[in-house]
Amino acid sequence: MTPSPFDSALLGPLLGDADMAEILSETRFTAHMVAVEGALARACGTVGLIPQDSAARISDALLQTHVAPRDLGAGTAAAGVPVPALVKRLQAELGPDGQFLHWGATSQDIVDCAHILQWRDALTLLATRVTQVLDLMQTASTAHARTLMAGRTRSQVATPISFGLRIATWAQPLIALEAALPDLRARLLRVQFGGASGSASAVGGHGAALSAALAQELHLADAPCWHTDRSAIIALGGWLTAVSAALAKAARDLVIMGRSEIAEARAGQGGGSSTMPQKSNPVGAEAIITLADWTTCLQPALARAASPLEERDGAAWALEWLALPQMGMATAAALRHATELMASLKADPASMSMQLDAGHGAALAEAASFALAAHMPRPKAQELVKNALALAQADGISLPQALDRLDGAKGLADWAVTLSAQSQLAASEAMRTRIFAQRT
Amino acid sequence: MTPSPFDSALLGPLLGDADMAEILSETRFTAHMVAVEGALARACGTVGLIPQDSAARISDALLQTHVAPRDLGAGTAAAGVPVPALVKRLQAELGPDGQFLHWGATSQDIVDCAHILQWRDALTLLATRVTQVLDLMQTASTAHARTLMAGRTRSQVATPISFGLRIATWAQPLIALEAALPDLRARLLRVQFGGASGSASAVGGHGAALSAALAQELHLADAPCWHTDRSAIIALGGWLTAVSAALAKAARDLVIMGRSEIAEARAGQGGGSSTMPQKSNPVGAEAIITLADWTTCLQPALARAASPLEERDGAAWALEWLALPQMGMATAAALRHATELMASLKADPASMSMQLDAGHGAALAEAASFALAAHMPRPKAQELVKNALALAQADGISLPQALDRLDGAKGLADWAVTLSAQSQLAASEAMRTRIFAQRT
Amino acid sequence: MTPSPFDSALLGPLLGDADMAEILSETRFTAHMVAVEGALARACGTVGLIPQDSAARISDALLQTHVAPRDLGAGTAAAGVPVPALVKRLQAELGPDGQFLHWGATSQDIVDCAHILQWRDALTLLATRVTQVLDLMQTASTAHARTLMAGRTRSQVATPISFGLRIATWAQPLIALEAALPDLRARLLRVQFGGASGSASAVGGHGAALSAALAQELHLADAPCWHTDRSAIIALGGWLTAVSAALAKAARDLVIMGRSEIAEARAGQGGGSSTMPQKSNPVGAEAIITLADWTTCLQPALARAASPLEERDGAAWALEWLALPQMGMATAAALRHATELMASLKADPASMSMQLDAGHGAALAEAASFALAAHMPRPKAQELVKNALALAQADGISLPQALDRLDGAKGLADWAVTLSAQSQLAASEAMRTRIFAQRT
Amino acid sequence: MTPSPFDSALLGPLLGDADMAEILSETRFTAHMVAVEGALARACGTVGLIPQDSAARISDALLQTHVAPRDLGAGTAAAGVPVPALVKRLQAELGPDGQFLHWGATSQDIVDCAHILQWRDALTLLATRVTQVLDLMQTASTAHARTLMAGRTRSQVATPISFGLRIATWAQPLIALEAALPDLRARLLRVQFGGASGSASAVGGHGAALSAALAQELHLADAPCWHTDRSAIIALGGWLTAVSAALAKAARDLVIMGRSEIAEARAGQGGGSSTMPQKSNPVGAEAIITLADWTTCLQPALARAASPLEERDGAAWALEWLALPQMGMATAAALRHATELMASLKADPASMSMQLDAGHGAALAEAASFALAAHMPRPKAQELVKNALALAQADGISLPQALDRLDGAKGLADWAVTLSAQSQLAASEAMRTRIFAQRT
Repeated sequence: MTPSPFDSALLGPLLGDADMAEILSETRFTAHMVAVEGALARACGTVGLIPQDSAARISDALLQTHVAPRDLGAGTAAAGVPVPALVKRLQAELGPDGQFLHWGATSQDIVDCAHILQWRDALTLLATRVTQVLDLMQTASTAHARTLMAGRTRSQVATPISFGLRIATWAQPLIALEAALPDLRARLLRVQFGGASGSASAVGGHGAALSAALAQELHLADAPCWHTDRSAIIALGGWLTAVSAALAKAARDLVIMGRSEIAEARAGQGGGSSTMPQKSNPVGAEAIITLADWTTCLQPALARAASPLEERDGAAWALEWLALPQMGMATAAALRHATELMASLKADPASMSMQLDAGHGAALAEAASFALAAHMPRPKAQELVKNALALAQADGISLPQALDRLDGAKGLADWAVTLSAQSQLAASEAMRTRIFAQRT
Repeated sequence: MTPSPFDSALLGPLLGDADMAEILSETRFTAHMVAVEGALARACGTVGLIPQDSAARISDALLQTHVAPRDLGAGTAAAGVPVPALVKRLQAELGPDGQFLHWGATSQDIVDCAHILQWRDALTLLATRVTQVLDLMQTASTAHARTLMAGRTRSQVATPISFGLRIATWAQPLIALEAALPDLRARLLRVQFGGASGSASAVGGHGAALSAALAQELHLADAPCWHTDRSAIIALGGWLTAVSAALAKAARDLVIMGRSEIAEARAGQGGGSSTMPQKSNPVGAEAIITLADWTTCLQPALARAASPLEERDGAAWALEWLALPQMGMATAAALRHATELMASLKADPASMSMQLDAGHGAALAEAASFALAAHMPRPKAQELVKNALALAQADGISLPQALDRLDGAKGLADWAVTLSAQSQLAASEAMRTRIFAQRT
Repeated sequence: MTPSPFDSALLGPLLGDADMAEILSETRFTAHMVAVEGALARACGTVGLIPQDSAARISDALLQTHVAPRDLGAGTAAAGVPVPALVKRLQAELGPDGQFLHWGATSQDIVDCAHILQWRDALTLLATRVTQVLDLMQTASTAHARTLMAGRTRSQVATPISFGLRIATWAQPLIALEAALPDLRARLLRVQFGGASGSASAVGGHGAALSAALAQELHLADAPCWHTDRSAIIALGGWLTAVSAALAKAARDLVIMGRSEIAEARAGQGGGSSTMPQKSNPVGAEAIITLADWTTCLQPALARAASPLEERDGAAWALEWLALPQMGMATAAALRHATELMASLKADPASMSMQLDAGHGAALAEAASFALAAHMPRPKAQELVKNALALAQADGISLPQALDRLDGAKGLADWAVTLSAQSQLAASEAMRTRIFAQRT
Repeated sequence: MTPSPFDSALLGPLLGDADMAEILSETRFTAHMVAVEGALARACGTVGLIPQDSAARISDALLQTHVAPRDLGAGTAAAGVPVPALVKRLQAELGPDGQFLHWGATSQDIVDCAHILQWRDALTLLATRVTQVLDLMQTASTAHARTLMAGRTRSQVATPISFGLRIATWAQPLIALEAALPDLRARLLRVQFGGASGSASAVGGHGAALSAALAQELHLADAPCWHTDRSAIIALGGWLTAVSAALAKAARDLVIMGRSEIAEARAGQGGGSSTMPQKSNPVGAEAIITLADWTTCLQPALARAASPLEERDGAAWALEWLALPQMGMATAAALRHATELMASLKADPASMSMQLDAGHGAALAEAASFALAAHMPRPKAQELVKNALALAQADGISLPQALDRLDGAKGLADWAVTLSAQSQLAASEAMRTRIFAQRT
């Protein structure tokens, strides 16, 4: 295999995502660094730290400049960050104006700003996809508002629900996470400017003004230097992990629903086997599960990176470079698969119905006992249901039929109607509606 | 050692926290479960699902009832959750009214509600402590607004900052996390009521009304059933982890500042050695680091728990029981230690000054080059500084003295004043102020 | 819930283990520390570092001494380790001989030795249980050597196997881990003696001799001081994690086999529901999955602890105290549940057979195509099988019946015999035998 | 940044490793898959499952074949594994012999074998590097056998050790891990052949023979099918993590030793700053720490992958593809950095000596008290030392000088000799020797 699975020609089409690959590419990152240096020059010009015409010439020149990541590789290895090599490279191009480049900044200012610009684009992509998946889920949920199936708890048939409700529970965490996005953006998309030790001391009394000007140039929110405050990065990681986990819940359910023995629903193109003609493997759902497990493994790296030593910490910081892009990529790829699965989701109501009726109506036992409890103490109702279930099993009849025959229960209700699967749908529908009502 | 370190008589005083131990105790949890069953009975009475007088009698009786955790142990082992044993135990006490207990609910409703009640108290405790630590940090930061020290980046002396700014960077993530608390509470402190398969089907058309009534009884927000939506739990875990990581940043700095060779600050009672009389170990700071590493290790358990199968998943859910209380306890204990450290923090300005002057003023090199750059191109300024540093080293004088002697630099400024440590403080003070301005 | 779930009266019976609780208790740990101090005194006497008669009196006195963990709690909180308080406490008892206690040792020597003594007992318990589970698996596997079921790959019916082979795959990793135990013990069960900075400098030239004597007293292997070499602890953690993961594989399979729709096997006492009379939840299997996930979460704590700073690192070291006992407890509890599950494992061959026949024999498609490939090119064989499957589906007959009717296939074999489920068993039996042959 | 940091042109030179990149490349992996298919054909020919001449032609043809990873990307995305596309691609080249390709195998057989072939090469590289680092450490340790420095425990000056001993403790875990390699290879480097459901049923009674023949062709050990037994993968992950953690211990020590205030040792080329001329950042050591933290984060992915469902599990398995190559790459890169650091390690004995003497000889307090204890009860000795330390501090003299003046101590020894730093070296040397004696 390969240490670069997401950009791999072999594995990338399965586990990666082309759109996110573009956003998180090193080429784009390098371009962002150049853009940040240009914006800093303009901001320094605005504030009066460097000559306005130098600022303008630097800005113009950098807009034309293309720096290849490869050109900074050796310098990155030597310094542990790409910025010294970048500054040298750009200064060589800029001539005398080059002295005004990178004015008062430190490497981390440039790298963090460039990183945040990548994440602004990445969050836009992810937000679009979350909304897309949610829309598909909402449509599918509505379409299956009256499709009955057996709810399962602890891997056992429990009581009837609608498939629409099941789908709504897939959407539910994503609804919360969609709602959390504006706050996440506000915490994350902030300018980074602190200079050598985070006090912006090299720009004298102009630290606050320069930070504000740079923020404006980059269309980011202004903020005090956050070199060592990585709490917003932890929040980003938490959001990505939660999205991934939410998708994995749906995927795990789909793997089960698509099992040979259950066959209640299918989604995606089934994958073929290298040796078994009949197989139709749940490739997309499995990929989502793998990707969510991956994101979960990487999550603690961000907390590890959030206790940097003193004013800046080379070891802790670089851990974010390893973890964050892969978390973003994995989340984007999982959303891509989820979109495909939701767009192609097909239920088999006949299978659902069959599974619900298996066990002679045991799934209706709770409903029966509550219906009887309107007429007698609940313990007695529960005992009657137990007897009815035994009778149903023994005679190969359904639970309603058994209740119709059983002394103490018969006559109290038209059991076929009271316990009809359809009569069970109202509760699911009410809950389904409440879940989607939270999406506004 | 012991699998129960936090409640251990041996290790608990070091790694645990008595206040949080009380809040998160199994005794309190069991009492919460009883209270939830009582509240459910009252809510069912209000909505008209069970007789009002039965509801009142149940509620009254449960207020008097004490259930020992031990009484539910065998039942928990048998069922995988404590609720069936609890219901049986309470019904035995209630007599005929017992049939109306636990009406329409499932085990997870009771356990999740009780858990949330624990966390309501836990968050109150944690919020108080975060505020307390922040207040102490703000006071200490203000007190040291004019205490100069060497900023360090990548474990090397960088440029001068104030100790006040260093302390402000400790506070900075906590300020963000204090501000995030109301949103976290809103997401987390919600009622759980879904019944068997999460559709509240056993209470007929009354699901929404019952949920609202129960929420009111428990003073929680109302919400659709969230049996399988654990996104709020992930958010809670993210907050706890971020608080812990923030404290560990301060603790790691304090360990370094308290090293024998540096001796810039002390905090807490130094721990004695079993064999070396001179030792004064940074016990409190080390404990914070250990606890933060622990919380970080546990964090992914919550994402793992957030992809439950189908309507309810016994395996995924119980993972929260293992992880969350320990994360809460570790965070509380870390905050306790941090409070002690901040309350006893003592700087040694002489040591700080000595470390800053070491290297013949290399820490002022950046400031010198920017000061010179006002009079000449920056590359030339940087070269002059390099020469001045070499001269300082060779002659055993300070950097300002060297600049006063060096052609090209001498006369351009009163170097002793321009590079005085005190002149470096303004930038730190501005940044310090901006950081605490975010706390409102 | 509680931060001490394993020793909890509520959750302990489900998630903990009484035998391991005893071994890993703080009481036992404290007693081990006292025993180590006694052994050290005897070893010092033997080597001639302290008077022989003092050594004997100390040893005798300590054999009678009971120290309660509670007595050391305040001291542990003050020093960050329990040893200074322990030494003070014991010296108070010993009178003038007390000066010879703890001779040349440091806290870590005592704590690590005591910890290793706990783990010697813990490994004995775990080894016994691994062997017990393996014996039960081997018996069950042999009993089901001729019980046919559908193998499943990627959650889809694949080809027939014996249930005996499935059980053998549960045993397979445990066989490897049982075999790895002697090496693990050799790496782990070593004496720790290094003194203050790990050079045993306080005992002059007697470091090696004292280490050897102490090792002999404690019945541990001798070793150079390993204060900062935690590679054996990582190996222990790897072993515990691998055992837990192996058990979780069996547990996850059992949850699926026990699903309402599949019902191929049952194990353990099914757990009841608080509201649904028909439920029989897979409590034991779920607990194993939870416990394995927990152990997996804790595993990285040990690598984190394995990069201690300098000669001793208070923060890194204490992380082991948090992680290791819980990993041991969780593994022991998982083994306890696995033993119960394996002892009560019951297959339902009729269900297995039914699932295998579902899909009109698709599970035999690979076998059919290889049987036909003896008579024709494989692509042609595969096409014939596809046609036969279509015919079987259309006419509601089995795959062998379809092959008997299909031109090109009919007459080439007695398809009912060639594709009989029983004919598929030989391969499973061969593999099953090879797996258990590795256990010696 | 980028999701592919290790192969990145920007970050790869810092965090990646060219040699390991070659071994773990997708190109090499794809070539291994082709080689495994060729070896399987030969083995099938040998056993008599397919015609010998077809086997020879397939083998010859595949030796000439180059398959680009790109050619299999779409097929991998469709099937979730690259093998169906590979088989189709190769069959198209082979003509009629193509039917005998991949005989009786399943995708996992090919992928796991190819993966193991990658790891055979990877372990060879890693073993060479571990040995190289150990040799350098041993040389450096020997060279500094008589270089005195202050041992530090819990970040405080403790007692004198030799720098040689410090270096030996860096080597110590690597010595254990070097010794563990043969066993790891024996567990890991095994053939994988199980066919569809792991019973090798498609090859009739020839499963064992074919497995043995394939093992011989690939120069791997024979083994029963281990589709679901991932215990050897966990062991591999444990070894990689332990190597990384061991290197990080040395790196963390080097960062401290290279701090501006301590300056006891330097290693590697110091990295420059983008703004501070005086900086010489510990780039190599920081990279090792980052890489070790990364490996530690990925470790639990392997345990997660080790509880696969049923006969094969698409989701769990792919997690290994994500984690293992990055763990191998990170470990290789960390070893590369460690080699550079050890090859360029330079101590500053004057700094070491100065730090040791700081505190007026407090580092000798333990030694003094044991020396006095030869003449008086130890409590009295300890009290005398305390007094001597106070006297030394007050009068600005050394501890030996103070003892020479102090009643009760003076005359008992020639304190300057008894407490000479050199006299402290013997113990370090003995321990150092014992540590390296374990390397054979």
